Amino acid sequence: MAAEVRRRIVEREWLQGDRIPDEADLAVEFGAARATVNKALQLLADEGLLDRKRRAGTRIAVNPVRKATFSIPIVREQIEAEGMVYSHRVIAQRDSPIPEDVSARTGLPEGSILTHLRAVHYGDGKPFQFEDRWINRAALPQVAGADFRALNANEWLVQNAPYLHADVEFTAANADARDARMLQVRRGQALLILHRTTWNDLGPITTVRLACHPGYVMSAAS
Amino acid sequence: MAAEVRRRIVEREWLQGDRIPDEADLAVEFGAARATVNKALQLLADEGLLDRKRRAGTRIAVNPVRKATFSIPIVREQIEAEGMVYSHRVIAQRDSPIPEDVSARTGLPEGSILTHLRAVHYGDGKPFQFEDRWINRAALPQVAGADFRALNANEWLVQNAPYLHADVEFTAANADARDARMLQVRRGQALLILHRTTWNDLGPITTVRLACHPGYVMSAAS
Repeated sequence: MAAEVRRRIVEREWLQGDRIPDEADLAVEFGAARATVNKALQLLADEGLLDRKRRAGTRIAVNPVRKATFSIPIVREQIEAEGMVYSHRVIAQRDSPIPEDVSARTGLPEGSILTHLRAVHYGDGKPFQFEDRWINRAALPQVAGADFRALNANEWLVQNAPYLHADVEFTAANADARDARMLQVRRGQALLILHRTTWNDLGPITTVRLACHPGYVMSAAS
Repeated sequence: MAAEVRRRIVEREWLQGDRIPDEADLAVEFGAARATVNKALQLLADEGLLDRKRRAGTRIAVNPVRKATFSIPIVREQIEAEGMVYSHRVIAQRDSPIPEDVSARTGLPEGSILTHLRAVHYGDGKPFQFEDRWINRAALPQVAGADFRALNANEWLVQNAPYLHADVEFTAANADARDARMLQVRRGQALLILHRTTWNDLGPITTVRLACHPGYVMSAAS
């Protein structure tokens, strides 16, 4: 049923913006229960092929399947998936006043004291990712007792800090002196940079800048 | 109902990996219909907070909300959303034998003839994105008559080529001589590069390399 509707869209029997027959008519045509038709249409709507509106009926989406999903990865798993041995090193972990850019990303006021962490993740001893992270103890009181040398912050947070909302940004940057030192690359090397900020009901949990090794590819599919 | 379950997860009354009460018990606790409970749990499962398995019941996800979605954007809309006037220029549009990397991305054999397009998208006359695209006429016969000077390929494809599957990759690269010329930046400037390949039921439709202007930020949220 979903496959047949998908075929009609892809082969352009039904065109973008067209209203498709209503559920009752489709149920008759396919000899299926209305609940089955509804489920199939919902699947296609979730994929982005259909726009469903309670009053206006179901139409073929004008910009079909424009959404792709990607997972926020666990860096250790990424490295191990490439057949490499994971290790990490905490460069610094200390409480510091919030810098301006972190204040802008999180909305936390000037003067806030956050836990600042710098760490490098390695695959077979080669730098894979440089992590520069700020953690808001106000939203995460249990962070005070955490030792990120034992379990890295990425995994500690996944296990201890469920979040309600995340912002993710991708940019490219030329490696600055610190990036170059941490990733063992020349200054100016193009790096993929991820900024990720998460919130729970108490406020911002953490914001992190991840500088990926040259050649790193982030993939998504839909 | 969903809000209350979400609260119990975020405030850690229910811990990661825990099995939660079954639908019948929750229906009694909340004085709600089982269908309502089911719908609320499905919403939270779609968000990634719950793992639902037919036999094993519903558990709190161990890596909650690790999925983010982003939309594949229309570059004209992106530029206009920043309050700039959109324009574009087709640098070249011709049929060419497939290069090795395009063959690897699409699975099309050596010797295939594809339509090769190079274009630059501008905001207020300043380069915003350099597009290097290959289009497979075998999956898209109507491309023969398309004039991408009139309507850019990005929008022409969205309007004329519904796809079933897309692969998206993000990387960073130092601008080569051509990137630098097209985007009017110095060689070596770090650029965010997107590779996107789409398929319909006839095969690969198109694969494109988009080189974004320095400072471009790609956002996602979940």
